Amino acid sequence: MDNGIRDVLQGVKDGTYSVDDAVLKLKAAPFADIDYAKIDLHRKLRQGTSEVIYGAGKTAEQISGIISAMLANGQENILITRLKKEVFDKIKECPGLVYHPEASAATVGENPEPDGIGKIVIATAGTSDIPVAEEAALTAQFLGNEVVRVYDVGVAGLHRLMARLDDIMSATVVIAIAGMEGALASVIGGLSDCPVIAVPTSVGYGASFEGMTALLAMLNSCASGVSVVNIDNGFGAAYVANMINHVSDKRKEQ
Amino acid sequence: MDNGIRDVLQGVKDGTYSVDDAVLKLKAAPFADIDYAKIDLHRKLRQGTSEVIYGAGKTAEQISGIISAMLANGQENILITRLKKEVFDKIKECPGLVYHPEASAATVGENPEPDGIGKIVIATAGTSDIPVAEEAALTAQFLGNEVVRVYDVGVAGLHRLMARLDDIMSATVVIAIAGMEGALASVIGGLSDCPVIAVPTSVGYGASFEGMTALLAMLNSCASGVSVVNIDNGFGAAYVANMINHVSDKRKEQ
Amino acid sequence: MDNGIRDVLQGVKDGTYSVDDAVLKLKAAPFADIDYAKIDLHRKLRQGTSEVIYGAGKTAEQISGIISAMLANGQENILITRLKKEVFDKIKECPGLVYHPEASAATVGENPEPDGIGKIVIATAGTSDIPVAEEAALTAQFLGNEVVRVYDVGVAGLHRLMARLDDIMSATVVIAIAGMEGALASVIGGLSDCPVIAVPTSVGYGASFEGMTALLAMLNSCASGVSVVNIDNGFGAAYVANMINHVSDKRKEQ
Amino acid sequence: MDNGIRDVLQGVKDGTYSVDDAVLKLKAAPFADIDYAKIDLHRKLRQGTSEVIYGAGKTAEQISGIISAMLANGQENILITRLKKEVFDKIKECPGLVYHPEASAATVGENPEPDGIGKIVIATAGTSDIPVAEEAALTAQFLGNEVVRVYDVGVAGLHRLMARLDDIMSATVVIAIAGMEGALASVIGGLSDCPVIAVPTSVGYGASFEGMTALLAMLNSCASGVSVVNIDNGFGAAYVANMINHVSDKRKEQ
Amino acid sequence: MDNGIRDVLQGVKDGTYSVDDAVLKLKAAPFADIDYAKIDLHRKLRQGTSEVIYGAGKTAEQISGIISAMLANGQENILITRLKKEVFDKIKECPGLVYHPEASAATVGENPEPDGIGKIVIATAGTSDIPVAEEAALTAQFLGNEVVRVYDVGVAGLHRLMARLDDIMSATVVIAIAGMEGALASVIGGLSDCPVIAVPTSVGYGASFEGMTALLAMLNSCASGVSVVNIDNGFGAAYVANMINHVSDKRKEQ
Amino acid sequence: MDNGIRDVLQGVKDGTYSVDDAVLKLKAAPFADIDYAKIDLHRKLRQGTSEVIYGAGKTAEQISGIISAMLANGQENILITRLKKEVFDKIKECPGLVYHPEASAATVGENPEPDGIGKIVIATAGTSDIPVAEEAALTAQFLGNEVVRVYDVGVAGLHRLMARLDDIMSATVVIAIAGMEGALASVIGGLSDCPVIAVPTSVGYGASFEGMTALLAMLNSCASGVSVVNIDNGFGAAYVANMINHVSDKRKEQ
Amino acid sequence: MDNGIRDVLQGVKDGTYSVDDAVLKLKAAPFADIDYAKIDLHRKLRQGTSEVIYGAGKTAEQISGIISAMLANGQENILITRLKKEVFDKIKECPGLVYHPEASAATVGENPEPDGIGKIVIATAGTSDIPVAEEAALTAQFLGNEVVRVYDVGVAGLHRLMARLDDIMSATVVIAIAGMEGALASVIGGLSDCPVIAVPTSVGYGASFEGMTALLAMLNSCASGVSVVNIDNGFGAAYVANMINHVSDKRKEQ
Amino acid sequence: MDNGIRDVLQGVKDGTYSVDDAVLKLKAAPFADIDYAKIDLHRKLRQGTSEVIYGAGKTAEQISGIISAMLANGQENILITRLKKEVFDKIKECPGLVYHPEASAATVGENPEPDGIGKIVIATAGTSDIPVAEEAALTAQFLGNEVVRVYDVGVAGLHRLMARLDDIMSATVVIAIAGMEGALASVIGGLSDCPVIAVPTSVGYGASFEGMTALLAMLNSCASGVSVVNIDNGFGAAYVANMINHVSDKRKEQ
Repeated sequence: MDNGIRDVLQGVKDGTYSVDDAVLKLKAAPFADIDYAKIDLHRKLRQGTSEVIYGAGKTAEQISGIISAMLANGQENILITRLKKEVFDKIKECPGLVYHPEASAATVGENPEPDGIGKIVIATAGTSDIPVAEEAALTAQFLGNEVVRVYDVGVAGLHRLMARLDDIMSATVVIAIAGMEGALASVIGGLSDCPVIAVPTSVGYGASFEGMTALLAMLNSCASGVSVVNIDNGFGAAYVANMINHVSDKRKEQ
Repeated sequence: MDNGIRDVLQGVKDGTYSVDDAVLKLKAAPFADIDYAKIDLHRKLRQGTSEVIYGAGKTAEQISGIISAMLANGQENILITRLKKEVFDKIKECPGLVYHPEASAATVGENPEPDGIGKIVIATAGTSDIPVAEEAALTAQFLGNEVVRVYDVGVAGLHRLMARLDDIMSATVVIAIAGMEGALASVIGGLSDCPVIAVPTSVGYGASFEGMTALLAMLNSCASGVSVVNIDNGFGAAYVANMINHVSDKRKEQ
Repeated sequence: MDNGIRDVLQGVKDGTYSVDDAVLKLKAAPFADIDYAKIDLHRKLRQGTSEVIYGAGKTAEQISGIISAMLANGQENILITRLKKEVFDKIKECPGLVYHPEASAATVGENPEPDGIGKIVIATAGTSDIPVAEEAALTAQFLGNEVVRVYDVGVAGLHRLMARLDDIMSATVVIAIAGMEGALASVIGGLSDCPVIAVPTSVGYGASFEGMTALLAMLNSCASGVSVVNIDNGFGAAYVANMINHVSDKRKEQ
Repeated sequence: MDNGIRDVLQGVKDGTYSVDDAVLKLKAAPFADIDYAKIDLHRKLRQGTSEVIYGAGKTAEQISGIISAMLANGQENILITRLKKEVFDKIKECPGLVYHPEASAATVGENPEPDGIGKIVIATAGTSDIPVAEEAALTAQFLGNEVVRVYDVGVAGLHRLMARLDDIMSATVVIAIAGMEGALASVIGGLSDCPVIAVPTSVGYGASFEGMTALLAMLNSCASGVSVVNIDNGFGAAYVANMINHVSDKRKEQ
Repeated sequence: MDNGIRDVLQGVKDGTYSVDDAVLKLKAAPFADIDYAKIDLHRKLRQGTSEVIYGAGKTAEQISGIISAMLANGQENILITRLKKEVFDKIKECPGLVYHPEASAATVGENPEPDGIGKIVIATAGTSDIPVAEEAALTAQFLGNEVVRVYDVGVAGLHRLMARLDDIMSATVVIAIAGMEGALASVIGGLSDCPVIAVPTSVGYGASFEGMTALLAMLNSCASGVSVVNIDNGFGAAYVANMINHVSDKRKEQ
Repeated sequence: MDNGIRDVLQGVKDGTYSVDDAVLKLKAAPFADIDYAKIDLHRKLRQGTSEVIYGAGKTAEQISGIISAMLANGQENILITRLKKEVFDKIKECPGLVYHPEASAATVGENPEPDGIGKIVIATAGTSDIPVAEEAALTAQFLGNEVVRVYDVGVAGLHRLMARLDDIMSATVVIAIAGMEGALASVIGGLSDCPVIAVPTSVGYGASFEGMTALLAMLNSCASGVSVVNIDNGFGAAYVANMINHVSDKRKEQ
Repeated sequence: MDNGIRDVLQGVKDGTYSVDDAVLKLKAAPFADIDYAKIDLHRKLRQGTSEVIYGAGKTAEQISGIISAMLANGQENILITRLKKEVFDKIKECPGLVYHPEASAATVGENPEPDGIGKIVIATAGTSDIPVAEEAALTAQFLGNEVVRVYDVGVAGLHRLMARLDDIMSATVVIAIAGMEGALASVIGGLSDCPVIAVPTSVGYGASFEGMTALLAMLNSCASGVSVVNIDNGFGAAYVANMINHVSDKRKEQ
Repeated sequence: MDNGIRDVLQGVKDGTYSVDDAVLKLKAAPFADIDYAKIDLHRKLRQGTSEVIYGAGKTAEQISGIISAMLANGQENILITRLKKEVFDKIKECPGLVYHPEASAATVGENPEPDGIGKIVIATAGTSDIPVAEEAALTAQFLGNEVVRVYDVGVAGLHRLMARLDDIMSATVVIAIAGMEGALASVIGGLSDCPVIAVPTSVGYGASFEGMTALLAMLNSCASGVSVVNIDNGFGAAYVANMINHVSDKRKEQ
């Protein structure tokens, strides 16, 4: 863990490292090893964002330890997803930790201002899909995006979706969230002219098979421009959407 | 096979049989046993239609033998579904047999005039779903219904469906046929006010799993009023649609 | 959302709208947006019934809010399905709300008189299928149908079914409800001459796979005239059955 | 391979072996090793029948070699199942070999007279199930049983089955063969008072999933007395049925 | 429901009924309809045993009501399977009711003496399979069979099975019970010369998929003579085994 | 179909239509109905691209007819995917049609110059994945993107991928194509800082289940930034990638 | 059970038994039958280790009884896997029993010193996989191996794995443990030159299907040298790894 | 690609590289890029063997090109697996190429002498499993191992396996190959004291689901010491077995 960011950059300045070498070194580099976890400290550099803690399957002690290690390494914004209220209650003493019950997540630090480029529209088929949508919304905002919520616009009542067509059309990316037969992704995919990230949810019963039906349906969408993430994976969808919404940033840098 | 329809009816007239007994007798009654098949001769009476021959998995000899037995027993209209062209070619000498290649089916006898009650609208999501739709259309016409075809109106281009909304709205029953993600059934289910029979098709590839995805999606339709038949089962959908389209006939009789 | 029903009808009277235009406008029209839900206020007009609230996955607050919005908009009959007793207990102050434990559902307003056209027969294979059957029965009655219950007539004891054959034969539609191997649908499908809506249930164990076996079996029914809804979906079956039982109404209107 | 049956029996006579030891020795004993196969020569003794050759996946040379080894070891009756016509044609010079096309099988030696104890009834739901039924029938006859064929009695036309109820009732064992939804097994299981061996077949399409639906349905039969073998396994069903039909023989010996 | 057994038999004596008619009448006949259940009162006649109550999914009230109806109709021996201890506790006032915790079942009346014909051997692969085995054992004894238990003889330690080979060889029927990979059925099937009823259990984890792996393995047994019942279905296996163990009784009667 | 693009735009100029109205009108608008297909003529406007013909499951006549209708309506660039060589041979007289065997596709018109914004990197795990990659590459180029091919860099030999790390790092979007266990998507997802579109392929055998394993693995990628399309769907991946690569265009327009 | 090890060895000395006979006798030999379990007492001889008790699905009484029988027979080291804390608490009076909560297991007796041959490296993709890894580690140590833990090195951050490459390279066997998409096994398989035992875990959600996705992915690993055990089967992996790590011992003996 | 093996080793001698650096460099190093494939030239060093060509899904041209590149780089022994006879016929001019039809594979160069350490025993359940076994045998011999074939010893006739127990007991590793229910792996796992690599095969029909049943059964083996590879993956099993058989070599080097 001896050669930090500063050293590498200094090496570039000195001519010791080519820029390419430096990038590679930074990418291959530092993490904090706290026994049960290896915390990635340069992800912000490498992937344009700080590390997010996936809370499911981790003990309160482990989560708390990871947050401490991150804070100690200078990370200012932290997102913890899939954090049950009862686990949060055990770690709520962590400085700056705020719980977002509608998204079952917590954050440290303020969400940044949206950087003003584009809009991420988050649409759900029904009311029961909202928790997944809120995980997506919080993630997208945490990563610096403007979010527009369009909830309960499933295809069984097409006029509800039509009434929000303007929002759909104004999006840079749409996150389409639906359980049951997941048809919302196809209909939005046919109407919009931007990438659609489809999120199947486990909403439904019987032959919805905990979201598998919506997942399969979305993968087979007859509309082009639709790609899919795992069942109930609001975080993952927002993460992709954020990358898309910042594509031009990257190109400007090149 | 000794007590025919006439005897039973005579028995009712005589008071030998109550009406209920007679109905039961007729229902429990006659079929022609030709060794490899038991041909149901009173289905027309019992279920309001003549027997249909399911051609798949039967040899040309078996199909030909069943047609002969039916004709010998006075059946005038016969439908043979799932009849491959090469099997048809071996039995085309059967008197009155006509092949319908677009439906992979054959008929004996003219289709009846539509009896003028309602309309069965048959909609497909794509061009590749047409063979299933034609099996449904031929079956519905064979059973005496007016059919309206609305093809290639999948949800990826919603305006194509909207342009045919009048037809959808005028239906007594809609048969919605789609492969891939099968969203057509949900969208039509949300727009129309009549029963929708959904037919998943094996159109698609990869995670369409030969129609299973469309099947599951249709079973999970968020629109009420949708029921589902087996994959590629155009015949079955039309059979149900015909029953629905003649519901009031039955009630008039009671 | 400014042009209400009255305006539209006035427009028709004035000659501003053709009848077709008016129907389309009404169909495409109004819903109340209460943030977490978009309540469809004209479904009665559009689909011949008031909106039903699917209670599963909604909080007591959400359900209560939706009921209030409906009542405020003049809806007199409301059905809430999949409403657990403990959720009902939190909202039982809603005026006029009655709980039906056998169907895990609640209603506001009296069920209408059956409109005297046909009968919906609801048959179950076993005693354990009764909760699904009661959801179907309540729904059918809520929508104005006469219901006949024929319970515990599974095919393992065929004489139990035979003893109720008269009821089966008198139906406009049969709803056949069974778990395990779901054979009841096929046997009733072979005996009756009306549409059969098959409802697989999650009754069974081991290789019943929570109703999937019954579902698959019903989709493969060798009897024609059978269509299928989702596992345990008593509501959906009754909704379709109601549409079928009112088919002739619609035709009379045309 | 040095100690033959004779030696063992002599040892029992001499008192060298207890009866138990002898049985064990015979069971653990001889087979002919022809490199690609180990031919069981004492199965007749051990399991009351000669070895049957499962033809699928074996070359003509292998099958022919196994037959020769069996004949050389004194086996007089041989059954080869799943033998395609084109494979048979390559080995038809084998002395005494007869092909049974309806069962896709061949035999050496005459079938024995039925030993007069009970009857095995073989029932099929449809015409397409007959090949599986004929494999079962040939096997049962090869093993010395009387067979009654009851074909095309599927539950969609219950009266066809009822007309053969006497046969069903007279059976020692019933083999119930059906594809699609496999309901025949449950209905026969409810009507008969003897063991029912259910054989799912791959007859069907779409959601029949090559026989899996019938298999699952039969495993979930609501009728007691039903057990199940693999899809299309006519041989296996007949083998079990034969054992059941000879149960009392064994007890007489004890 | 007016013509009871006596009347029918009198009719035969009188010559009013042929024997065949009488059998049919008896089979088609009486059950007690207590609303939520139709209790089969002549099954003993029809299938050689009294009705067994499947306790799962029934309320204490329903089970208690069915027992009462049975007792009122003269049934002396009753078996209730899948009866949880807490449900039993609510109905333990039923006269003569005894709980068998190891089998999760209850009985009314003494088990009959084994009728001395053959033995049913019940083998398990492991200790965890014992509850299923005990359900089978109790059922077999309730139906009048001698039972031999051979527990924890899974194939991972083949010598444990070999040590009980005498018991296996002495059986009229073997019930082979195993979870995980279910290999016990194949090994016993290869060693014994009587029918083997295989019962897959839900014992295992991960890719055992709640018994599906054992089920599939048993259906594919390379040993002939094996048929299969549903996962954890100890009752069903014993029911079939009992029928097999009494096959010769039936034949003697004919 | 009477109001074309010109009319709508004129209406905007005139003040007859608001811009929003115009957009809506254009979106809801024109297609050519040629009986078996409804050809979308304004998709270029609505979704930024011309319609692509999905060749699978269409006859040569249908494809040829659709091309003609498109050409007649002024479309200059056409892509036909999943076009078998033998179908192409029947329609190769179509003016300007060029076949691309490595992609099993054909085009009319020259591919446009890459518009110079970013790069789409297409990576495959193995040699057998190349056909899917070529479908993606052709599609991306057809839509105006620069493409970099990085083939046979599967994770079993990580140094092969590392040697191409510069290309991976320079991408605007990566399309990661792999069969078998599909791990390539996760590894690239962890290394790159742009969106990764994962395409599972049907390459593999046994438990690869025709691509389902790769599909499931990719959906569960532990790397963020990965979304997934259907098995072997090179076209779909490139379509999404193109949308992402042009995101900033859209924003500039707003 | 009368001929113990001593007798057999004496027999060899005497020339009564050939060595082969002796080995066979010992293998086929002794176990303690305590009714619900047959305890294998010579497994140490036969398989080079003492019997391990699989705790899941056994009652506290059964586990306690088995431990007692083992101790009574001279076993000094006992491992009980899958032992829940609450079951342990009921049997903690057993002399010498120690609980290992991180592995959900208990042991009697000290773990032996590692015998100094090779190293077993246990790698996990994430923090949530640690419980499975600890079961493996405890088992491997119980069987006399040196263990190196390399945790939280999943492929989403490849540099974390690279940082531990020396450990990976020094292994005799690697146990690679991962949920979600299970890519860790492939990447390690490509980097290392020793056998890799892959353990899929049930870590993940949605389309991870409780570990099935990781399982399938690992079975399809594009890296050679990978074999797979059941989901979450840390014990099984360590058992195989131990055998591999002691392969040369065996050869020395021969 | 400029620094070859020699350079690296020279660097170590010179002290330029530490040994660790050298190993890392060699591992991260050279492959030949022939456009459609990246050929790994140092795998022999890195993993103790030359690269094997997986022939399935590659054209004759691609295979031939890869062989040429390997020969040009000094590789003397090459194995091509899954090579169909018709593909071989197109490339048989390659110098030194020999086809092994029983294994559907080809080799260049002589197999090395077995290095005399241990034996790999390859056992099959039936005759139809032999092709998979021969792929394993050829691979094992190509990699320098002694192979013992034990074919057709499935558990349905346990005495056939017992007769070869000496071979099983003498193995360093056993490869157990079986289709259908795959029980052979469990039985051998229980009998032997060395690692067992289980290979499920696609032999079987119906519910064998192309080998999935055997695969699942083997993963759930109740015998410890069993790990599993993909269906029909004889090569993979032999590759793992070879690694195990050479474990002590590696340790000697350390």
